[in-house]
Amino acid sequence: MKEAAAAVPQTVDPSHALRLARRLIECRSVTPEDGGAQAVLAGELERLGFTVTLLPFGTTPNLFARIGTGAPHLCFAGHTDVVPPGDAAWTVDPFAAEERDGVLFGRGACDMKGAIACFVAAAADRLAFGPLHGSLSLLITGDEEGPATDGTVRVLDWMSDRGQIPDFCLVGEPTNPSAIGDCIKIGRRGSLNARIEVRGVQGHVAYPHRADNPVHRLLRILGELTASPLDEGSDSFEPSSLQVTSVDVGNPASNVIPSRAVALLNIRFNDRHSGASLSEMLQRVCDAHAPGAALDIRISGESFLCEPGREIGALRSAVRAVTGREPSLDTGGGTSDARFIARFCPVAEFGLVGASMHKADENVPLSDLAALTRIYRALIGQLMPEPGGETTP
Amino acid sequence: MKEAAAAVPQTVDPSHALRLARRLIECRSVTPEDGGAQAVLAGELERLGFTVTLLPFGTTPNLFARIGTGAPHLCFAGHTDVVPPGDAAWTVDPFAAEERDGVLFGRGACDMKGAIACFVAAAADRLAFGPLHGSLSLLITGDEEGPATDGTVRVLDWMSDRGQIPDFCLVGEPTNPSAIGDCIKIGRRGSLNARIEVRGVQGHVAYPHRADNPVHRLLRILGELTASPLDEGSDSFEPSSLQVTSVDVGNPASNVIPSRAVALLNIRFNDRHSGASLSEMLQRVCDAHAPGAALDIRISGESFLCEPGREIGALRSAVRAVTGREPSLDTGGGTSDARFIARFCPVAEFGLVGASMHKADENVPLSDLAALTRIYRALIGQLMPEPGGETTP
Ligand SMILES: [Zn+2]
Ligand SMILES: [Zn+2]
Repeated sequence: MKEAAAAVPQTVDPSHALRLARRLIECRSVTPEDGGAQAVLAGELERLGFTVTLLPFGTTPNLFARIGTGAPHLCFAGHTDVVPPGDAAWTVDPFAAEERDGVLFGRGACDMKGAIACFVAAAADRLAFGPLHGSLSLLITGDEEGPATDGTVRVLDWMSDRGQIPDFCLVGEPTNPSAIGDCIKIGRRGSLNARIEVRGVQGHVAYPHRADNPVHRLLRILGELTASPLDEGSDSFEPSSLQVTSVDVGNPASNVIPSRAVALLNIRFNDRHSGASLSEMLQRVCDAHAPGAALDIRISGESFLCEPGREIGALRSAVRAVTGREPSLDTGGGTSDARFIARFCPVAEFGLVGASMHKADENVPLSDLAALTRIYRALIGQLMPEPGGETTP
Repeated sequence: MKEAAAAVPQTVDPSHALRLARRLIECRSVTPEDGGAQAVLAGELERLGFTVTLLPFGTTPNLFARIGTGAPHLCFAGHTDVVPPGDAAWTVDPFAAEERDGVLFGRGACDMKGAIACFVAAAADRLAFGPLHGSLSLLITGDEEGPATDGTVRVLDWMSDRGQIPDFCLVGEPTNPSAIGDCIKIGRRGSLNARIEVRGVQGHVAYPHRADNPVHRLLRILGELTASPLDEGSDSFEPSSLQVTSVDVGNPASNVIPSRAVALLNIRFNDRHSGASLSEMLQRVCDAHAPGAALDIRISGESFLCEPGREIGALRSAVRAVTGREPSLDTGGGTSDARFIARFCPVAEFGLVGASMHKADENVPLSDLAALTRIYRALIGQLMPEPGGETTP
């Protein structure tokens, strides 16, 4: 597909995103607290003409806001909750939104209150031009850093019931390892956790033939599972990875063969596997070495991939126009709420630089806020015709 | 070697061993307590003419008693301490030495107050015949079921310093699995405990290349150690056995690669290995998969073997004469204080039936006490000339 060159937005007010980011950081929205963050956002969006629906599920605050009713429908997804400041040595108050030498500090600065502010500022700039030929929305949860059960998943069901599923969703997670423009995430590996408990027959180490050592059976299971890589990667994904995260027996008696042994493992898997295919594989290996072993599997997300098309093309083009850099299309790293969205519509992720996320002195340079606002603004310009037809000047 | 046929002793008083066994069981000598057991024994031995030396080391009571000064010097080794009664359901008072339907019940009945009583009764019978052409001794500790540091080991050093090392030592542990005459132990496998601690680099499971999973390194170590048997056994020993008794990581976070993993293992080894050769092997395997891993090794005993000769022949012959059965010469099972004695002189083990040892309702049939007394008496008769030269009637 041939990509149109995006225009670099000239009118964007760089102080809008900064002001909103500061107001959001000042809200102490450490998961599961909201700290008033969603009310700040709702007020800003209503002022711009969005229809805002607050969608608390359980104790989780969520928000869906939309302006316009037509297609294309571009949705921005994100979260207002943040991880705790932690014990680490902050040199600033994590919730003071202090600005120093052109850098904004605070918990959530890059993950991801800053990105939310950039999208709102981009939308505001676009809306100032005149009526939308399409619609913009925001799906914001307060439970991304927590269990994520009453957040994005529940809002998506609500949107689906009301015909509000967008044509494309952009998740504002910090996808860039070191500089704006590094990387667009177009998919994520799936994640599966398993617990294997092998029971044997306890006995004295001097008489192993009268016992059945569950540790040895578990070692054979784990040995087979870790003997060779699950795959060598695929066209769009790095190799899948299986990590044994714990093995626990808890037997203090050096002369006793214990009666049970437990292992925990996590698999990050690409599109050559599924939760179901891996579950079958695990069951087969357990059956081979320890028939009757208890195997508990929790699939926290299937892998997904957004095949590069019009929207990804537009996003690349916007990044290129603003930063002069060619972003890689990546599928690495951990999971995000994008795994839930992928069940409903194409989704990609692009946000700020993640280097300081979840750390002390989390921060974002003001220049990055300005650049991301321009990128989001250029994406909107690409995806829906601008008044005056200036989409590709 | 041709074995002489032993005479079945006719004069032994079966009630002597029973009376002494009951008095010993009534002493609550749960390790490390003595409960007056060694004083009972010392009194009985002095009455028979033994020279008794009490040898307390630390808080451990020990006793060495000898009668006669010449060769051959036959020593009986044993312990007056017992394991705790435990929570299990006894149907009798563990320290009441109750006799019911021809069976004596109580903690220590078979392991091994009963056997001590049998040896004393056998010695008494022999001494009633007239002067010994040789000498008899008893090496009794109160710390066999405990750490065994201030017991037999210390008494042997004391004996060695004074020229009291016997020509042959008989340990009275319950060697018979189901009936008197089953089995003489002529050696034991060695025992080695190892603790392996692997340290890695903690990290997120999604980024394993930035971490170094110590569990996987430990799995490779343990996989190699358990992949094949250490050996197929030797002329006198069953195969060596390596048992991993615990693996512990204790990592509750399913998305975190942990920073350390620990394994505990025990090796019971035959005469094809030594503590030193196994230590080298363990170090080599650790180095191959986890350079710098912490390997702590404790060798609690080397393997030993008493080559069948005159004394073992005499013991077999005595067993055969009294029970009509051919005892197997065995080196299996756990360790005993015989491993310490083997450093000084030939040693074999033969005692009561061990089926109820360390269990509730530990017991010994009175007929077994009588049989073992006769066997010990016949052994003494074989090893040293009887007055009147009636050794092989
Ligand atoms: Zn985030
Ligand atoms: Zn014992």
